Amino acid sequence: MLNFVNDYAEGAHEKILDRLRETNLESTPGYGMDPYCEAARQKIQKACGCERADVYFLVGGTQTNQVVIDALLKDYEGVAAAATGHISTHEAGAVESTGHKVLALPHKEGRLQPDVLKAYLKGFYMDENHGHMVFPGMVYISHPTEYGTLYTKEELAGLSAVCREYGIPLYLDGARLGYGLASEDTDVTLPDVARYCDVFYIGGTKVGALCGEAVVFTKENTPRQFVTQMKQHGALLAKGRLLGIQFDVLFTDGLYLENGKHAIRLAAILKKAFEEKGYRFYLQSPTNQIFIVLENRQMERLQEKVNFSFWERLDEEHTVVRFVTSWATREETVRELISVL
Amino acid sequence: MLNFVNDYAEGAHEKILDRLRETNLESTPGYGMDPYCEAARQKIQKACGCERADVYFLVGGTQTNQVVIDALLKDYEGVAAAATGHISTHEAGAVESTGHKVLALPHKEGRLQPDVLKAYLKGFYMDENHGHMVFPGMVYISHPTEYGTLYTKEELAGLSAVCREYGIPLYLDGARLGYGLASEDTDVTLPDVARYCDVFYIGGTKVGALCGEAVVFTKENTPRQFVTQMKQHGALLAKGRLLGIQFDVLFTDGLYLENGKHAIRLAAILKKAFEEKGYRFYLQSPTNQIFIVLENRQMERLQEKVNFSFWERLDEEHTVVRFVTSWATREETVRELISVL
Amino acid sequence: MLNFVNDYAEGAHEKILDRLRETNLESTPGYGMDPYCEAARQKIQKACGCERADVYFLVGGTQTNQVVIDALLKDYEGVAAAATGHISTHEAGAVESTGHKVLALPHKEGRLQPDVLKAYLKGFYMDENHGHMVFPGMVYISHPTEYGTLYTKEELAGLSAVCREYGIPLYLDGARLGYGLASEDTDVTLPDVARYCDVFYIGGTKVGALCGEAVVFTKENTPRQFVTQMKQHGALLAKGRLLGIQFDVLFTDGLYLENGKHAIRLAAILKKAFEEKGYRFYLQSPTNQIFIVLENRQMERLQEKVNFSFWERLDEEHTVVRFVTSWATREETVRELISVL
Amino acid sequence: MLNFVNDYAEGAHEKILDRLRETNLESTPGYGMDPYCEAARQKIQKACGCERADVYFLVGGTQTNQVVIDALLKDYEGVAAAATGHISTHEAGAVESTGHKVLALPHKEGRLQPDVLKAYLKGFYMDENHGHMVFPGMVYISHPTEYGTLYTKEELAGLSAVCREYGIPLYLDGARLGYGLASEDTDVTLPDVARYCDVFYIGGTKVGALCGEAVVFTKENTPRQFVTQMKQHGALLAKGRLLGIQFDVLFTDGLYLENGKHAIRLAAILKKAFEEKGYRFYLQSPTNQIFIVLENRQMERLQEKVNFSFWERLDEEHTVVRFVTSWATREETVRELISVL
Repeated sequence: MLNFVNDYAEGAHEKILDRLRETNLESTPGYGMDPYCEAARQKIQKACGCERADVYFLVGGTQTNQVVIDALLKDYEGVAAAATGHISTHEAGAVESTGHKVLALPHKEGRLQPDVLKAYLKGFYMDENHGHMVFPGMVYISHPTEYGTLYTKEELAGLSAVCREYGIPLYLDGARLGYGLASEDTDVTLPDVARYCDVFYIGGTKVGALCGEAVVFTKENTPRQFVTQMKQHGALLAKGRLLGIQFDVLFTDGLYLENGKHAIRLAAILKKAFEEKGYRFYLQSPTNQIFIVLENRQMERLQEKVNFSFWERLDEEHTVVRFVTSWATREETVRELISVL
Repeated sequence: MLNFVNDYAEGAHEKILDRLRETNLESTPGYGMDPYCEAARQKIQKACGCERADVYFLVGGTQTNQVVIDALLKDYEGVAAAATGHISTHEAGAVESTGHKVLALPHKEGRLQPDVLKAYLKGFYMDENHGHMVFPGMVYISHPTEYGTLYTKEELAGLSAVCREYGIPLYLDGARLGYGLASEDTDVTLPDVARYCDVFYIGGTKVGALCGEAVVFTKENTPRQFVTQMKQHGALLAKGRLLGIQFDVLFTDGLYLENGKHAIRLAAILKKAFEEKGYRFYLQSPTNQIFIVLENRQMERLQEKVNFSFWERLDEEHTVVRFVTSWATREETVRELISVL
Repeated sequence: MLNFVNDYAEGAHEKILDRLRETNLESTPGYGMDPYCEAARQKIQKACGCERADVYFLVGGTQTNQVVIDALLKDYEGVAAAATGHISTHEAGAVESTGHKVLALPHKEGRLQPDVLKAYLKGFYMDENHGHMVFPGMVYISHPTEYGTLYTKEELAGLSAVCREYGIPLYLDGARLGYGLASEDTDVTLPDVARYCDVFYIGGTKVGALCGEAVVFTKENTPRQFVTQMKQHGALLAKGRLLGIQFDVLFTDGLYLENGKHAIRLAAILKKAFEEKGYRFYLQSPTNQIFIVLENRQMERLQEKVNFSFWERLDEEHTVVRFVTSWATREETVRELISVL
Repeated sequence: MLNFVNDYAEGAHEKILDRLRETNLESTPGYGMDPYCEAARQKIQKACGCERADVYFLVGGTQTNQVVIDALLKDYEGVAAAATGHISTHEAGAVESTGHKVLALPHKEGRLQPDVLKAYLKGFYMDENHGHMVFPGMVYISHPTEYGTLYTKEELAGLSAVCREYGIPLYLDGARLGYGLASEDTDVTLPDVARYCDVFYIGGTKVGALCGEAVVFTKENTPRQFVTQMKQHGALLAKGRLLGIQFDVLFTDGLYLENGKHAIRLAAILKKAFEEKGYRFYLQSPTNQIFIVLENRQMERLQEKVNFSFWERLDEEHTVVRFVTSWATREETVRELISVL
């Protein structure tokens, strides 16, 4: 079976496995205090163009969203997000389980628009009953979004400006950030992300690590006792080196971006093939996710040879499906897929 | 520096690294649905002598305690534990953060005694105000305990009987279970643990894995939608294979127990040396943790060459410290330590 | 100033004050164990035509919603509600603060429609990713709704049937139930509510009591240790008699319904006047709330003499406002209002 | 039956009932914005000798403890309290249900001692593992305590000094404050309480109100959006006037203290009688609670004529029981009790 289901189906980039082995028997302190975490922090600060950034390593994406959001919000605050945002839909209520509402807002192909955010915030404070409502305490976006779409630099700047006007932090979920940064259709760089966001995370799990997400606080705004808060959420890894080593490798010689570019290049080949063969795109994603509308019969036929994701039922006879490339996809597998399209 | 600080200072048993590499580029389903998790489940069921056991893999110990306890308790219930229990003291309030009280009980060198538990439960239900109190909904023990001590089979049976009398589950935290099972002074086997406990976890992180704990529900008593509950707590690893592969290796050819025995053998050598050199034991631990009372000056001298843990201040001039051996400790390092004692 | 702002601006029906005084120096047990609570329970059971109903008294509406919903939901479940539902919007996140998501659904003038609910539930279980989503664990409606509209008996029966099909309880928030039952445009009686809902509450605060809401579990489905759960939420009143006495009076000689009818009669007079004077209705509410679209200048003029509620800005020049009658509104006040329209 | 079970068995002081009736049909704003709440606030500020105090009215004691503690603590903090404190034992885990641990400390007849508190806080920050523990974020005491005992002014000053040294607030639960202030054996006044505590509440429920507790923040330290936080906990009463009117009456012409003194005077008569008749006191309480050790047979005989509280089983043949006087106890009832002792 050809695998295009997702970008976390394989292990890790081999350089990571090499480094895990090389360092395996060294004794290091636990809980992120080891030299590999420290080295990774410095490399990430540099890549972000933000020397004062505080960097913490967590294990997974839902966990990271839960810990960061809970740590930043006051008890009476919620987090504003696109109605399609990952935290709104596919994290089993992880944010709500810490007592905070996800305030769902309209979106444009998954992207929260600055004017929509501003209108919401303005309306909230103008509503004379807002004291009986959940206060918007931060804004969550993801880049790429659930639809693989990307914010423009202008949109990021706009969201950032609105957040600053209202004194609330802008948080970017970068589970697939590597694929966003590597896109040919983006004007957003990692330093841009660091500049416009108050906090964001660099996803490792989906971009070549066994596990791991690096949270970056960019404005000397790390919540007090953040490590204790990680521990309280069960998110402080004892052998923190496992995360430090991986991010150290990913941020050495540009491997993180390289992983992203590999997937983008293969996605481009695949998109071109879909186009040439007359397939119907559900939407245009500039990253490693391709959304295609298939006739149900055609879908069933393809499923015999290829693993891809069901996205949503479009109508009685058509289904939206998703093909994903990753750091681990081989060009030959893409060619095989094309040959059976 | 010689390292005797803890049992999670190194990476993983090399067989684990080998297997991670061998399987690295295979595409597998995420979230614990891969064949390695399945193989590990079957091996653990077999090792437990409990074919109907349900096995789930989580990343770390605090996380596992939080998820299991929260999933088993009803909203109005708390968890009874020794006052010195890990969840009572060193998990940053992870249990309370999910809304549940830890009901602290007296203990004997870290071990909760069946008669103490029974008296507490009996007293609770006799108290005519118990409707205004937190109901005891489960019992937490760890084996080994925070003091490295071990329950006898009789004690486990006793606790189990009390729990069944009151209709509440007995949960065993096995963060260091491998060292407990490998002790020469125990009559408790893994099948005993499975028989007497309703749920327990087999610690990987401290017994040779990079990370990972295997939760075992032994009585067809897995909480409903447990995977969703893991997700909700940020505890469902996307690349579940990372955990499955490790436990598959640990439960192949008895590696888990072998790791434990290695540490126990070295601890025995070290204990004998402490004894012969007239050191004062704070308490006798039959496992891989050795608690020694040092004069402060002596402690400072040793600290120049050896990393060990501060445990507690005994009096103005003496301190309790802890030396820990592990699956990764080399005999030659123990010899070096002995030579500087 | 004429007061039409809301239905909780005055104290209590004088019969309640009389009874509080008559019973004042009797010594009674606390926490709802007094004879007045017991008498009120029996009268409510009878009024509901449901002798096996379990009845509990709480102090306020948000509190009641929080306690009932939290007690009925499992940790991984949320509550489905109209997007405009009170719990979705105006309870400051009280439901989320207990860890549960409010699953917002489309509505028709505030009413959740059976087919919409069914489509949502069906879609949820068909979604192969639903294990990563919040499970719908119950359905919340209010009657009257936020817009003062009422469910038909058929709609209630339909919602009830869908809930039973999916094995989840239907909960009705009856903060203004008295005004709903007293409407001339309803075919829903209190026994109907008891028949179709698994749990509901009869609002006292807005229908003539100083405070108090009576929760009714109709299907021998009271959550275990419900009194303890009330206590845990700070919702168990020490002098429970204060609630028992009030509901005893409200359910003696039909006072509750009489209070409702009084408000409905005055609302009808007022609606007719609005109509005759050519005012524009925002929507037709069959209960004690009247929603009118005013030109902003007209609104300002009226505000000099009358207190009413701002509802929402319609456009640059028009505003939706709300006039409310209650058990305490005097007919002469309505006449005065009409004279200034 | 003679009633000495507790101090919340009757309704309210008749002046409160009078005032409720007088004001009954006035239309007032809800949620504590009415003129009676405002008047009560000013009278309380004056009685506390603290004009800058912020005063909020809640309904009950457990609710008040839950809301205040949750609002003051950061997510990673717990509240230090005597192991016998009400929040530690008899509030069904209301504090833990909001995610915070109650850090139980040793006590002296229910009173937390300044040196014990200081040693605990010092030890906490000296422990090199404190980052993995629950941070002490505030201190809870009650006055009178669960045993009816009272802090001296010196103890209060001492606790206050320790709290300030560590930068955490001192919170006093005054459920029975009126009886404490009225004691003949106290040197603590209401202005003392306001001076030494950062926040406290004046209990209404047990000192003559139908319900109601007045929270006083004394140091311009009201948590942000406190009203919203009350709402979120279901603790914001719609008809706030019910609370405002009651506290307005209680703080007019010294009624609150007068209620306290009445109970204290009758308790003194009763204590003297117990003494003269050779009864054994369990401990000496200077307030309205009297703890007596009875032989079980004697207890059963008394129970035929008197309602009192079971406190705890002392040994096989003796039981500790509690007799309570209140604002509502009549001297003639005390005489009757004495006659049957």
